[in-house]
Amino acid sequence: MTTQQTTIGSYLVDRLCGLGLKHAFGVPGDYVLAFYKMLADSPIKMIGSTAELPAGYAADAYARVSGLGCCVSTYGVGALSLANAVACAYAEKSPVVVVSGAPGLRERRRGQLLHHTFGAYDAQQAVFSNLTCANCVLDDPLTAFREIDRVLEACLRHKRPVYIELPRDRVTQPSLHPHVAASEEPTSDPLELQDAVAEAVGMLRNSRKPVILAGIEIERFGLSGDTLRLAERYGIPIAAMLLSKSVVPEGHPLYAGVYQAGAGRPTVTQFVEDADCLVMLGALVTDLDTGMFTHDLDDNQVIHAAVDGVRVRRHIYPDVRLPDFVRALAEADLPRFDHKPPVAGEPVYAPWRAEKGRPLSVARLFQKVNAVLTGQTTVISDPGDALFGAADLVVPDRAGFLAPAFYATLGWAIPAAVGAQLARPDHRPLVLVGDGSFQFTGAELSTAIRLGLDPIVIVLNNRGYLTERVLLDGDFNDIANWQFHKLVDVFGGGKGYEARTEDEFDAVLDAAQATRGQTVIINAHLPPLDMTPGLRRLGERLAKRV
Amino acid sequence: MTTQQTTIGSYLVDRLCGLGLKHAFGVPGDYVLAFYKMLADSPIKMIGSTAELPAGYAADAYARVSGLGCCVSTYGVGALSLANAVACAYAEKSPVVVVSGAPGLRERRRGQLLHHTFGAYDAQQAVFSNLTCANCVLDDPLTAFREIDRVLEACLRHKRPVYIELPRDRVTQPSLHPHVAASEEPTSDPLELQDAVAEAVGMLRNSRKPVILAGIEIERFGLSGDTLRLAERYGIPIAAMLLSKSVVPEGHPLYAGVYQAGAGRPTVTQFVEDADCLVMLGALVTDLDTGMFTHDLDDNQVIHAAVDGVRVRRHIYPDVRLPDFVRALAEADLPRFDHKPPVAGEPVYAPWRAEKGRPLSVARLFQKVNAVLTGQTTVISDPGDALFGAADLVVPDRAGFLAPAFYATLGWAIPAAVGAQLARPDHRPLVLVGDGSFQFTGAELSTAIRLGLDPIVIVLNNRGYLTERVLLDGDFNDIANWQFHKLVDVFGGGKGYEARTEDEFDAVLDAAQATRGQTVIINAHLPPLDMTPGLRRLGERLAKRV
Repeated sequence: MTTQQTTIGSYLVDRLCGLGLKHAFGVPGDYVLAFYKMLADSPIKMIGSTAELPAGYAADAYARVSGLGCCVSTYGVGALSLANAVACAYAEKSPVVVVSGAPGLRERRRGQLLHHTFGAYDAQQAVFSNLTCANCVLDDPLTAFREIDRVLEACLRHKRPVYIELPRDRVTQPSLHPHVAASEEPTSDPLELQDAVAEAVGMLRNSRKPVILAGIEIERFGLSGDTLRLAERYGIPIAAMLLSKSVVPEGHPLYAGVYQAGAGRPTVTQFVEDADCLVMLGALVTDLDTGMFTHDLDDNQVIHAAVDGVRVRRHIYPDVRLPDFVRALAEADLPRFDHKPPVAGEPVYAPWRAEKGRPLSVARLFQKVNAVLTGQTTVISDPGDALFGAADLVVPDRAGFLAPAFYATLGWAIPAAVGAQLARPDHRPLVLVGDGSFQFTGAELSTAIRLGLDPIVIVLNNRGYLTERVLLDGDFNDIANWQFHKLVDVFGGGKGYEARTEDEFDAVLDAAQATRGQTVIINAHLPPLDMTPGLRRLGERLAKRV
Repeated sequence: MTTQQTTIGSYLVDRLCGLGLKHAFGVPGDYVLAFYKMLADSPIKMIGSTAELPAGYAADAYARVSGLGCCVSTYGVGALSLANAVACAYAEKSPVVVVSGAPGLRERRRGQLLHHTFGAYDAQQAVFSNLTCANCVLDDPLTAFREIDRVLEACLRHKRPVYIELPRDRVTQPSLHPHVAASEEPTSDPLELQDAVAEAVGMLRNSRKPVILAGIEIERFGLSGDTLRLAERYGIPIAAMLLSKSVVPEGHPLYAGVYQAGAGRPTVTQFVEDADCLVMLGALVTDLDTGMFTHDLDDNQVIHAAVDGVRVRRHIYPDVRLPDFVRALAEADLPRFDHKPPVAGEPVYAPWRAEKGRPLSVARLFQKVNAVLTGQTTVISDPGDALFGAADLVVPDRAGFLAPAFYATLGWAIPAAVGAQLARPDHRPLVLVGDGSFQFTGAELSTAIRLGLDPIVIVLNNRGYLTERVLLDGDFNDIANWQFHKLVDVFGGGKGYEARTEDEFDAVLDAAQATRGQTVIINAHLPPLDMTPGLRRLGERLAKRV
């Protein structure tokens, strides 16, 4: 019981605070100003972005790191500019709350067109119903409080974005009745759980070379610790996927690498596909994660536990929850296995020494990057060859790698660095971004500088859309060659560097590492058609579909 | 009959060419690469943008100037990033064709997640059904050709965006049967038309002080010439609205100014509201265009002809087409009126002379801008005080002014300059943009520079979101203070200037005017709370609703 009256707006703020939210992202606008003001007076810090799309990406990264993200926007111009970021969060299961202001109910009259609207007043909700797992319009104080509970619960249960629309004249409406937040925790069917675990135990007992393939849901549902306990207790090696890279610390002795089927390092692919029992946990089977579905896994040897049930061989236990299954399996009675992950023999792991005057190549760039990673680095990669190269980096800390590796939206990484560092201030983002990607949202580095954050941004500058070149080339893959490093003069802060040779790159990356508290942009010039082995392998398969 | 077989993709290209399209805007991506290649081999020039949202704005401006615009994008990441630009075109009736690539039908399999997708394969079409007046998915060669005809016809008839989705493995599918493009021209009901015109003529005959209020549909449906003929033949003064500003050349002796009700110049407001017969033609009654619905018009004296029918006093003729009505009225038998528009006495019209060392103010900035406008200038304004100030500029040429004056999306103007100049190469864009607005899409100046375009961009730099400050201030309205003029060093082209005083601004704007062939950025420093009278008047009314 508080002395101040609870209103629709204040209840939403209170619930978000209660769920641990400390920052929200957005751009102010008149339909959301009253709620903005309410947030400004709350413990939640509003982070102003240069535009809505980067605010959405920042909220997404914040959610991936901290467990919940939020972006706040005005109607139409604001919320619709978030659409792509919300779709990314939906595709990759990131729990983002979208709050959109809206015209007040009292100002809606027939034939009077209100700015930022684009049709019927329910058009925006209709748009977002395709991009979120739950949505509501808080237009009635009788239902608004329960609607907030329902929608936030869906966000956390499904780890997917939700949409909350708040007409501006409803922000300060008090509740009509006392409201107590209620939620129901879903549970497994106990007999199904028992059967599923028994079957899995049976398969594991009959195996000699089991492997765990830990997918993104393990990270999202906070099950990394349980998965590692399972692996360590029985000595089962763990592979990750591109989307779930760093789900376990990559220096761990049981860690086998990122499995990418036909597009991955052949030793890892062979190791995973040779498993005589593959325990897939919360994995999304995407084209980019499987080298365009080149994975060769025998259904008879696969257990796949995910958020929508557990599949053993060819049958499904629909009412077994992923956390219950992982924890039960970690407590089961199994022998220890004598199965070791393969030794990584690829060049990225070789000790780095710059060769003076030698033009920088993408392979050597990644070797140097690998050499500077620490337990306080969050590597954040944009799609494209930045991502394919990053796959083989050894990221020391759990959740030290972030990328939109399935939805593959260009321009994600730089805004994500803002969100990630606010969520985890003791980590420093190291951003890998192509020159094409940079042009989408590079302006958001201005926000990083304004906030005193210190990401290191490496622009892999090969003068165009390399991934598209591999598929089908034409003039349309050329882009303007920006002097990326000079942006620090425009933003009025940070350090900009250029590197063309190995020794230049070596020196500037070391200098960047040594300087805390400053955003750094490194314009790394690369040959236009130089590419990682990963892109070469994937490109061949992808080109067949274009 | 062509010797080459017509395919779904080639037919779409042919139809767009046939409608006069010479440029299309977008960013390449694998789901649309095959169609991109087809466009690259056609007379249509593909313009690569830094991101999709600016591509959408450029296509919108191109459509406003040339009569049809087009943007081409990949699925998900591309098309969803266009959503806000498409909503703007929908709200402001701009005929933009959105073509989105999509996964091939053959690669869609159960349980296999394809990159850039975010749910069911029809989710994107569902999103765009809320943002367009017609949509189709070209998945069947039996129906695809008629669907293209239907959707393009809707685009031109309603002057609103349409959505065409093209799965990548359908681009080169030939037609199953010979197809001939068909279209039906809508017609007025002849008796309704006769009655409506007779009533209008009767009202005009009984009036002494008639005024025409020409709205945006007059511009979109190419009726400016007919409207001017009507005005000139009978000597009826014409006012415009913010959204339709420059629908007639603003130096015309019958031109009265921009009517904005309570937010506009009082002399214009009074002149329009004193009319004893107001002929509204294709006007949208929006909040920003009427000072938040402060218009005081007597229904008994209003004729409003628009695309959805003609309203006379309080009744409607639904089946009268706007062009038929305007042309019939211009041919009617009416006396000449002796009614003169008011003389503009506001400071913006005063002869300009810079005062040396005097800090630049927003009022004086607009005076100087007004002094340099020519018949080859297209003024393009972003929302905010740039727009409220621009309302009173005297734009010499018809369609020499562009702004998203109803949907009011920040960041529109700079990409629009690219689209507008490609559509009308003999005009030079003069862009008015706030510092907040610039940060949304300023990167797109890189495209202008790459293409050798030469917009002059004036950044009204008052260090924050001024319009929001007027409504409800807080830290959240502060933004980073960019050195906008230094962006030319990043983009590797163009000229950048700074101006703090009247004489500095005078000199740099003259220098910019004198230099053709180069993009110019002028960072014009203004006092943070300085504002135009228009914003002051509108802000007072708007603040009551926040």
